[in-house]
Amino acid sequence: MITRLDSNTPDFSAKLDALLAWDSVSDHKVAQIVDEIINEVKARGDAAVVEYTNRFDRRSAESMAEFVVGADTLAAALDAIEPAQREALQEAARRVRAYHEHQRQDSWQYTEADGTVLGQKITPMERVGLYVPGGKASYPSSVLMNAIPAKVAGVDELTMVVPAPDGVLNNMVLAAAKIAGVDRVITIGGAQAVAALAYGTETMTKVDKIVGPGNIFVATAKRAVFGQVAIDMIAGPSEILVLCDGDTDPDWIAMDLFSQAEHDEQAQSILVSPDANFLDEVEASMARLLPTMSRKDIIAESLLGRGALIKVNNMDEAVALSNHIAPEHLEVSVADPEALLPSIRHAGAIFMGRHTPEALGDYCAGPNHVLPTSGTARFSSPLGVYDFQKRSSIIFASPEGASTLAKTAATLARSEDLEAHALSADYRKL
Amino acid sequence: MITRLDSNTPDFSAKLDALLAWDSVSDHKVAQIVDEIINEVKARGDAAVVEYTNRFDRRSAESMAEFVVGADTLAAALDAIEPAQREALQEAARRVRAYHEHQRQDSWQYTEADGTVLGQKITPMERVGLYVPGGKASYPSSVLMNAIPAKVAGVDELTMVVPAPDGVLNNMVLAAAKIAGVDRVITIGGAQAVAALAYGTETMTKVDKIVGPGNIFVATAKRAVFGQVAIDMIAGPSEILVLCDGDTDPDWIAMDLFSQAEHDEQAQSILVSPDANFLDEVEASMARLLPTMSRKDIIAESLLGRGALIKVNNMDEAVALSNHIAPEHLEVSVADPEALLPSIRHAGAIFMGRHTPEALGDYCAGPNHVLPTSGTARFSSPLGVYDFQKRSSIIFASPEGASTLAKTAATLARSEDLEAHALSADYRKL
Repeated sequence: MITRLDSNTPDFSAKLDALLAWDSVSDHKVAQIVDEIINEVKARGDAAVVEYTNRFDRRSAESMAEFVVGADTLAAALDAIEPAQREALQEAARRVRAYHEHQRQDSWQYTEADGTVLGQKITPMERVGLYVPGGKASYPSSVLMNAIPAKVAGVDELTMVVPAPDGVLNNMVLAAAKIAGVDRVITIGGAQAVAALAYGTETMTKVDKIVGPGNIFVATAKRAVFGQVAIDMIAGPSEILVLCDGDTDPDWIAMDLFSQAEHDEQAQSILVSPDANFLDEVEASMARLLPTMSRKDIIAESLLGRGALIKVNNMDEAVALSNHIAPEHLEVSVADPEALLPSIRHAGAIFMGRHTPEALGDYCAGPNHVLPTSGTARFSSPLGVYDFQKRSSIIFASPEGASTLAKTAATLARSEDLEAHALSADYRKL
Repeated sequence: MITRLDSNTPDFSAKLDALLAWDSVSDHKVAQIVDEIINEVKARGDAAVVEYTNRFDRRSAESMAEFVVGADTLAAALDAIEPAQREALQEAARRVRAYHEHQRQDSWQYTEADGTVLGQKITPMERVGLYVPGGKASYPSSVLMNAIPAKVAGVDELTMVVPAPDGVLNNMVLAAAKIAGVDRVITIGGAQAVAALAYGTETMTKVDKIVGPGNIFVATAKRAVFGQVAIDMIAGPSEILVLCDGDTDPDWIAMDLFSQAEHDEQAQSILVSPDANFLDEVEASMARLLPTMSRKDIIAESLLGRGALIKVNNMDEAVALSNHIAPEHLEVSVADPEALLPSIRHAGAIFMGRHTPEALGDYCAGPNHVLPTSGTARFSSPLGVYDFQKRSSIIFASPEGASTLAKTAATLARSEDLEAHALSADYRKL
């Protein structure tokens, strides 16, 4: 069933690259609809948002005010959920916050001998919009992972939009919003919510950045408003790469691969090991465990279409393969993962040792679960506090410093034929 | 000639926003041409790049090898320029490098009571492409500002592309590349160079990120390959906002405004002061100095179309205006700029005091001159070392830690109907 590959076969690279290939679909029809929605919201503000929301989510609101979720509703949701769920959300939030506190960056400056001061000032963004999908894809863990870094960064106002089809909301999502410190919750979604966040309306203030996952309409709308506001990455399907020396319980590894595959049919689970027998054992575990899983159809389709068990010659080769793939999630299920860590260059998150399944990181270990997909870990990072802070350079030249710098600046400005630059520097010569 | 505004007039906000409005032109014809070029380079590699380069730059190469600039040519360029220019480039590079060293981020980790280790590993990108425009817009300072942060970050291979129309190259640009430590220089440009960097060809290895300014074909190509590789921001016209208390020499301020205006007709220079007489004096200085400037036509058109002198009631109002505008360059030409700094929230670079004209920062003070334009300083930062590093989360759960975390993770996973996630966590319970 699942693809088996061996790095010693001559067509290995070609087969692997075919398996990894994934192209984001850009749909012209969707882009057209999204453009129209954005233009309507820009032109007619709240009225357009209310119309689209009533139509797409089967609501019957007369004004935006009816979409605003009051603080009492959030508090009630937190009360309404099971105590075990409440404690789990609170514990996850506490750990995610503690980890992200380490990411906060501070302003710095230094003074040169002639008194000139140079530095970098760090400030949080003022307003951020958090998109949360409605219905089945409405994940409380995603609310925590997106909202907490923004609040740790010091964002003044975090507005969460979440569609409520037929007026139905998920209490776990509202409870997570309450715990994460979201400032405002509005039950709108789709391209109309993205447009309202990006351009503002009578009742919504334009934000500086929009984060959070969504369907193709939301992703297309985010791409369209990129530049007007900042956006987070547009994610591809989720993936896991497990490197195993062959000594982890094969059931554990099978279930780790399942945990990725159960997300959706496009998700990718790959296991790499130098131990061919171990690959057989994991395949046997998968065959035995699959029928017991509630999402077995999704898991089977994902593993069949995009999964692989790969035999390599040794763990060094496994690490090289991992650097080639630049996986979103990398599980290093070996006796001494720290020995391999220095060689690992490209990965969104690295799960070290046999006792660190991806699921711990998805929910509560502390690091973010919003990670670069489809090989973009070569140049992208996990969502973090740094995504909600920005920098301003500081230059404060002393009269002596300015006089010295002016000479260099004027010489270079004249070599670029920029005379006003040169004179503006020259004026500061003592 | 230049627009005069007063914050006390009722239509002030509307007039100001009209002045600030700037829409990037997206040209369908250009997008079509760029798409075709990208597809040709993807399909035919080097052959397509050679053909386009011969056609657009009037070259007659038979292979890519003829476009590669040898190390001896770079060294010869450094020898060939004037000693004063060489010293100025070297001094600027030294200062830019020293400043950017402060931006380097380090990996960190911490160990929890139960032995679980959490952290963040920082690694440089492997390969970066630097686009440098050819002809008149070929600025050596831009080579330093883009290349040095990449090399400070530890990028393995920095490839610079610069078109050489009719085979002509700028010695100052080559000398700057040599000083900045660029690894490879190739004389190709346009969308074909961007495509070759993004997708690779027989002779060019695909890069992880493309940075550097370019014309509309280059900007459109960068947008098109965004996602495949990382790109830096797509810059709008350059702008300066000067806040002055009225006690700086009006000629100095006039020339500072000119230095922005001389870039191009779309550049924006705005002066804000509570002192109406001072605004008159600066206007008089501009009228007197303008005829003496070599780029007087560009300066006049820029100031007439996009410049402004704005009277406000006090310096607090000036700062509030600045935060509204979120300028690329902010000059705080007052007696005690440090008193105002805590209130300044959104700006690309802040030039403090009467002796710090923007020109010093453009060339040699140390901070980067690639800055967020058109109000994007609300959510963007200067180009920096952080743009060439990326992060991987580290999670190494101890058996005890995993057992504790598994309880929380499994509870949340079940609330999201993700059973394999829950079981994968449960397996690690002790």
